[in-house]
Amino acid sequence: MKALLLVSYDGTAFSGWQRQPNARTVQEEMEEAAYRAFSRRVTLTASGRTDAGVHALGQVVEGDFPEGIPPEKLRECLNIQLPPDVKVLRSCKAPEAFDVTRQAKRKTYCYNAYFAETELPLYSRYAARLKRQPDIALMREAAKLLEGEHDFSAFRASGYTSRTSIRTLYSVNTEKTAIPSGTLYSVRVTGNGFLYNMVRILAGELFAVGCGKQEGITRAFETGERSALSVTMPPHGLVLVSADYGITELLP
Amino acid sequence: MKALLLVSYDGTAFSGWQRQPNARTVQEEMEEAAYRAFSRRVTLTASGRTDAGVHALGQVVEGDFPEGIPPEKLRECLNIQLPPDVKVLRSCKAPEAFDVTRQAKRKTYCYNAYFAETELPLYSRYAARLKRQPDIALMREAAKLLEGEHDFSAFRASGYTSRTSIRTLYSVNTEKTAIPSGTLYSVRVTGNGFLYNMVRILAGELFAVGCGKQEGITRAFETGERSALSVTMPPHGLVLVSADYGITELLP
Repeated sequence: MKALLLVSYDGTAFSGWQRQPNARTVQEEMEEAAYRAFSRRVTLTASGRTDAGVHALGQVVEGDFPEGIPPEKLRECLNIQLPPDVKVLRSCKAPEAFDVTRQAKRKTYCYNAYFAETELPLYSRYAARLKRQPDIALMREAAKLLEGEHDFSAFRASGYTSRTSIRTLYSVNTEKTAIPSGTLYSVRVTGNGFLYNMVRILAGELFAVGCGKQEGITRAFETGERSALSVTMPPHGLVLVSADYGITELLP
Repeated sequence: MKALLLVSYDGTAFSGWQRQPNARTVQEEMEEAAYRAFSRRVTLTASGRTDAGVHALGQVVEGDFPEGIPPEKLRECLNIQLPPDVKVLRSCKAPEAFDVTRQAKRKTYCYNAYFAETELPLYSRYAARLKRQPDIALMREAAKLLEGEHDFSAFRASGYTSRTSIRTLYSVNTEKTAIPSGTLYSVRVTGNGFLYNMVRILAGELFAVGCGKQEGITRAFETGERSALSVTMPPHGLVLVSADYGITELLP
C-alpha cells in the first residue's frame, strides 16, 4: 500500500534527508523505524532532499507499506519507533499513480535570521545571526523583483545543473519581529519549485540588500551569474514549511 | 570591581545554574570562562538559581572582576570563552552595596506549552506538550485570581520552606498562538518574587483549569495545600525572562 506521511524534523543532528554511509540521516532513521514497526524493509522518498542542518515543519514522504494497516495508523506505529527529533504528523493513502518527487504544486520555505549585538543562545538553533541590521523596507522592495516567473540560474550553488532553471515564485514575504535583545527576520518563499540552495542564496541577497547592496538581483537575472549575488546563508536558518499536493488529509 | 552581567542560556544541556559535582552547570561554565579570560578565580552569583533544563533570556549575574577592565568589555571577554548555549548580552558596573540575590524589584518568567496530536520536533525543545487543548478564556479568568498579594504556600514544591510565602504577582498573562500542526500557549508571570517551582505549578494549574478543573486555586489559597493544585510542569517549558533591578545598562 502506497502511503504518504507528513513529517517534521529538527535538522540539527541530521546530515540531511538522504541516506549516506557513516552519517545520521532522516531517511535512515525513518526507514529503520518502519523496519522495527513492520518487520519489513520500506524505502521512503521525500518531496525533496533537505541538506544537513535544514529543518522541516511539513516534509512529505512516500513509501510502500504492508497491506492491512489502516493508513491513518501509520503515524502512530512509526512515532513509537522514532526519536524525538523526527515525527510523523499525519499519514494517509497515496492517490493512484502518485509521484512525490514530481507532483508538488507548490512548496514553501522559511529562512530565519536574527540581528543582535551578541549570539542569542535561545534563538541560534533555528536562526542564523546577522552582523548588521537590515532595513526591512529595502528587503521588501527587492523581494518584489523575485516574485513571478524567472530564470533563477544565478540563484543556484555553482556546479549544479537541472533540466531547466526557470521557476515561478508566487510570494516572497519578509517579516521583522522584536525578540529579547534583538530583531528576528523571516523570509517566507512559496514557489512551484526550487533550485539547489536557492532559498539560502535568495535570503542572503535580501539581507545584503537590506544592508545597502544594490543591483544584485537585476544583474543576477541579466547575467545568470552566481557571483552577482551575496553569500549562501547557513543551513540551520532554513525550514521546509510545506509541500502542497492538494491532498486534504496532509493539511496540518 | 563588582560588575553585573545580563546572561542568556539554553538550559537543555545544563543541570541548572548552581555548581555541583559531576554535572555541567551554568555557574561552572561561566566561572571557568572568567578564569580563562582573566587568569583569576571569579565567583558568580545569580539573581536566582534556575533548575536543570530551565532556560534564561535575561538572568542577572554578579561577580567581582579584576580592576582595569572597562565593565562594558566584560561581555566580549567572556563570550569569546563561553560555549554557544550561554552568552553574556550586557555587562556594567554594579551599583554601591548591591546584592543581586535580594534587590530585584520584579522578575518575569514565561511558561510555554503546546497542544498537538503528536510531538512537534521543532517546538519540543522549548515548550512542554499538552495532551488536551485548554480553553484560553477559562485560563485567563483563573489567572486573574492569582494576581495581587497572596500567600502562595500551596504553589511550592512540598518539603521546601522560606521566611515568608507571601508574594505579589503584578500580572499573569496567557496567550495562545497558532503554530503549524498545533497551538502554542504561553503563561507570562511578573511578580516581586517566586517560591520554589511556583511558576511550573501555577502554569500546570492554569492548563488544568483550561481543561475543566474547578476551584483548585481558591482551595489552594484557603488551605495552603500543594495537593489542591495540579501537576508541576516540566522544566524545559520555563524561561526566566528578566530580573529587574532598575538598572538601565542591563535593559536589553
